[in-house]
Amino acid sequence: MKIYNNPPKSDWEELCRRPNFEQASLEQVVNNIIEKVKTEGDVSLFELTEKFDKVRLNELQVSNDEIELASKNIPKQLVTAIQLAKENISKFHEAQKEESKQIETSPGVLCWRKSVAIESVGLYIPGGSAPLFSTILMLAIPAKLAGCKEIILCTPPQANGEIDATILFTAQLLGVNKIFKVGGAQAIAAMAFGTESIAKVNKIFGPGNQFVTKAKELIQATGIAIDMPAGPSEVLVIADQTAIPSFVAADLLAQAEHGPDSQVVLLSDKQDIISKVIKNLEAQIALLPRRSITKKAINNSFAILLKDLDTCLEFSNSYAPEHLIIASDIAAQFTQKISNAGSVFLGNYSCESAGDYASGTNHTLPTNAYAKSYSGVSLDSFYKKITFQQITQKGLQNIGPAIEIMAEAEGLMAHKNAVSIRLKNTNNV
Amino acid sequence: MKIYNNPPKSDWEELCRRPNFEQASLEQVVNNIIEKVKTEGDVSLFELTEKFDKVRLNELQVSNDEIELASKNIPKQLVTAIQLAKENISKFHEAQKEESKQIETSPGVLCWRKSVAIESVGLYIPGGSAPLFSTILMLAIPAKLAGCKEIILCTPPQANGEIDATILFTAQLLGVNKIFKVGGAQAIAAMAFGTESIAKVNKIFGPGNQFVTKAKELIQATGIAIDMPAGPSEVLVIADQTAIPSFVAADLLAQAEHGPDSQVVLLSDKQDIISKVIKNLEAQIALLPRRSITKKAINNSFAILLKDLDTCLEFSNSYAPEHLIIASDIAAQFTQKISNAGSVFLGNYSCESAGDYASGTNHTLPTNAYAKSYSGVSLDSFYKKITFQQITQKGLQNIGPAIEIMAEAEGLMAHKNAVSIRLKNTNNV
Repeated sequence: MKIYNNPPKSDWEELCRRPNFEQASLEQVVNNIIEKVKTEGDVSLFELTEKFDKVRLNELQVSNDEIELASKNIPKQLVTAIQLAKENISKFHEAQKEESKQIETSPGVLCWRKSVAIESVGLYIPGGSAPLFSTILMLAIPAKLAGCKEIILCTPPQANGEIDATILFTAQLLGVNKIFKVGGAQAIAAMAFGTESIAKVNKIFGPGNQFVTKAKELIQATGIAIDMPAGPSEVLVIADQTAIPSFVAADLLAQAEHGPDSQVVLLSDKQDIISKVIKNLEAQIALLPRRSITKKAINNSFAILLKDLDTCLEFSNSYAPEHLIIASDIAAQFTQKISNAGSVFLGNYSCESAGDYASGTNHTLPTNAYAKSYSGVSLDSFYKKITFQQITQKGLQNIGPAIEIMAEAEGLMAHKNAVSIRLKNTNNV
Repeated sequence: MKIYNNPPKSDWEELCRRPNFEQASLEQVVNNIIEKVKTEGDVSLFELTEKFDKVRLNELQVSNDEIELASKNIPKQLVTAIQLAKENISKFHEAQKEESKQIETSPGVLCWRKSVAIESVGLYIPGGSAPLFSTILMLAIPAKLAGCKEIILCTPPQANGEIDATILFTAQLLGVNKIFKVGGAQAIAAMAFGTESIAKVNKIFGPGNQFVTKAKELIQATGIAIDMPAGPSEVLVIADQTAIPSFVAADLLAQAEHGPDSQVVLLSDKQDIISKVIKNLEAQIALLPRRSITKKAINNSFAILLKDLDTCLEFSNSYAPEHLIIASDIAAQFTQKISNAGSVFLGNYSCESAGDYASGTNHTLPTNAYAKSYSGVSLDSFYKKITFQQITQKGLQNIGPAIEIMAEAEGLMAHKNAVSIRLKNTNNV
C-alpha cells in the first residue's frame, strides 16, 4: 500500500484514476458472443456454457424440483439471517415509494407523474469464487416491490451443472422462479435479445466480471436499459483521530478481498492513524483465506495524509467512491460536505459489510467515479415515471395563447395550430 | 397514411418497429469527430464548425454583450409567454423535490437517501430549421432547481456566426451564461472530454440530429452519463367516438412537422373517426408552411382500426409511444391501463403542444419504445441519490450476527471479520 504525504492538487486527477485492467481484445470477444446468441439462440447458450463453464447441460432452466431440493438444505441460521436481511432491505426500499402528487400549474392545467413498473427485468448473479446470493436480495426485492411482472435470473452453473443451493433458496424466497443456468456475456445477450428459452427483457441488472460488464455496455448502446455502468468494487475511508485502526483495517480488507482489481483508499489528517491502520492491516491479512487475492488489491491501493478533514472530503468528492466510510465519532457533521459517493457509512460501527448484506440499503452501487452522475440501484430503478396531464377547456384558454406565441417563434406552425383550433372551438362553445 | 384493419397480433411487433434511417457509415463519422475533439481540443471545434455550420468563428463562447443585446430584441409578448412557461415548468419540477426520510430498519440501524445535485451538466440545444428555446426551459429549469453548480450550453451558430436571440434570452433568464457556439457531435465530444474553452461535464442532456444522438450513445459507452437514448419524435393518438377529428388531425400534424423521420400513429375502434381524422388532416396539411417535411412524416405513419379501446391500449403499450394522446371525453378512465408511454395527454383539450411548451411537464421524453424502460427528464435526472447509514454499537449487535453468517456463506471472511472485530469490541465495552 503506497502512502502519499500531502500530494499537490495537480496530482489528484492521477490519484483518482482507477487502475485499468481491460484487455484490448475484450470488445471483439464479447461482440462475437452477443452476435452468436442473437443468431443461434439456445443452441449457442449450451455451446458457450460448455466452453466457458466446462459443463454440458441438458436444460437451461432450473427445474422446480431442483429449487425445492436446494431450499431444504440451507442451514437454519442462514435462513434466519437471510430473512432478517430481506426484512430490512424491504423496509428501506418500501419507504422509497412515492405518492403521485397532482399539481395544478395553472387553473385548469393538472399535471402529475405516476410510477409504473418496468414490465420485465433480467437479474444477473455471478457465480465464480463465491455464490453471491446477497445480490439477489438487492435486486429481486425492489423488482417485486415495484411490481415487475416478469423477473428472470441468470447465473452460471457450477462444474456439476447445478446452481448453488443458497442462490436457489434466496430466489424462491423472493418469488423468482425463472432461473437459467447461463453466465457471462452470453447471459446478458440472451436477456437482451431473447432466445427460445429466455424471454427478452426491458432492463438488465447485476454485477459481473469484465465480460458481463462489457456485454452490458454493448447492449445498452442498442437501446436496452441497464442498471448502471460498472467497474471493480472500491472503498474510500476517511479516518480522523477518533477512528479505531483495527476496524478501519478490517473494512479495507473486506473491500480488497472482492478481487485483485478492487481498490481501497485511506485518507487521514493524522500520520499516526495511517501507520496504525497499516500495521493492523498487515496483521489481519495474514489470517484471511482469500489473502492472495486481497494482497493484490492492496498493491493497487494507497493511503494519503492530508492537511485536514475538509481536504479529505474534497479529495473523496474528486474520487467519487462507490463506498465511503467516515471512521469518526463525529461523522454526522460531515454529511453536508459529501457530494459524490455511492453509499456512505457514518461512524465507527457502520461497517460496509452491513450495507453489503443486511442494514437495508442497496449494495448495487456506482463504481469507477460514476457516483459523480449515477445513483445506486433503488426502487426507482425498476420504475418508469410517466407524466400525465389533463387540461380543461378553460385551462387551455389560460395557457393556450402563450403556447401559440412560443410555437410560432420556434417556427412550428402545426404546433400552434393544435392550440388555435381548440381555442377557436372553445370560443364558439 | 396507411390504414390497417384489425391486424392480427402476430403483426404487432412489425407495426411497432420504428422506421430506421441510420446510415451505416454514421458510427465511423461520429467516432472520427469525437477522436478529433479529444486530441485537438478547441482548434478542432473551430475547424468542424467551419466545415459543418459554414461559419468561421473568432470565439467559441458567446460574449456577455451578445447575450445582453439579444435579450433586448425579444418581442414583449414572447417574453411574457416564456415567463408563463417558466413558471409552470418550475412549479411541476419543484414539486418533485423529495424530503429525505430516515428509516430505522432495525433498532440502532438508521438508513436514508439524500438527493445531491450532479455538479456539472451540459445542455445541447439544436439549431437548424427552428431555434428550440423551449428545450432550454425543459433542461435548465430542473438543473437550476436541483442545484447543479456548472451548467454549460452548446448550440450551433447560424450562418452569420450568431446564436438565435430567443435562445440567448431564455438561457440568461434561467441563469445559464456559459453558452458556446458549437453544435453536432463535436459539441457532445467537447462537453464529454473537455477542451481549453469548454469544461468537461458529468452528464449531457438534450435532443439532436442523428450525429448528436450517435455521439451521445458513443460517449455513454465510455461512462459519461446522458439523459436517455434518443430517436425521432413520435405520437400515438387513441381516439374514441367522443374525439374531435379536427383536433386529432392537428395533433398528428404537430408531431409530423418535427421532421421527415417523425412517426404518428392513430388508433381507433371507430372506422368513421379514422376517416374523418384523415379528411381533416389532408385539409389542414395544405395550409402548413412545413408541409413538405410534414408529408414525408405522414408517409411513415399509419392508422389502425382495432376492435375496442382495450385493444387500442394494449397496442399502445406494445408501441410504447413518446407521447400518448387519449382523445376521449372519458380519457381519465384509461390511465390505469397505460403501462408504457413517455407523457400522456388526457382528453380532447390536452394537446401535445401544451406539454411541449407550457403546461409544466417535461418535453424531453423517451422515443423509439424506450418508454418501456426509461422515464422522461425530471428533477431526478439532475440528482444522484446517495444512501447513508449510521449504525450504533447496539445496532450492530442486532444485525451483526446475520451479516457474519451471510458473509461466511458467500466465502467472504474479511467481510465477516469487519463485523466480528466490532462485535468483540462491543462485548468488551
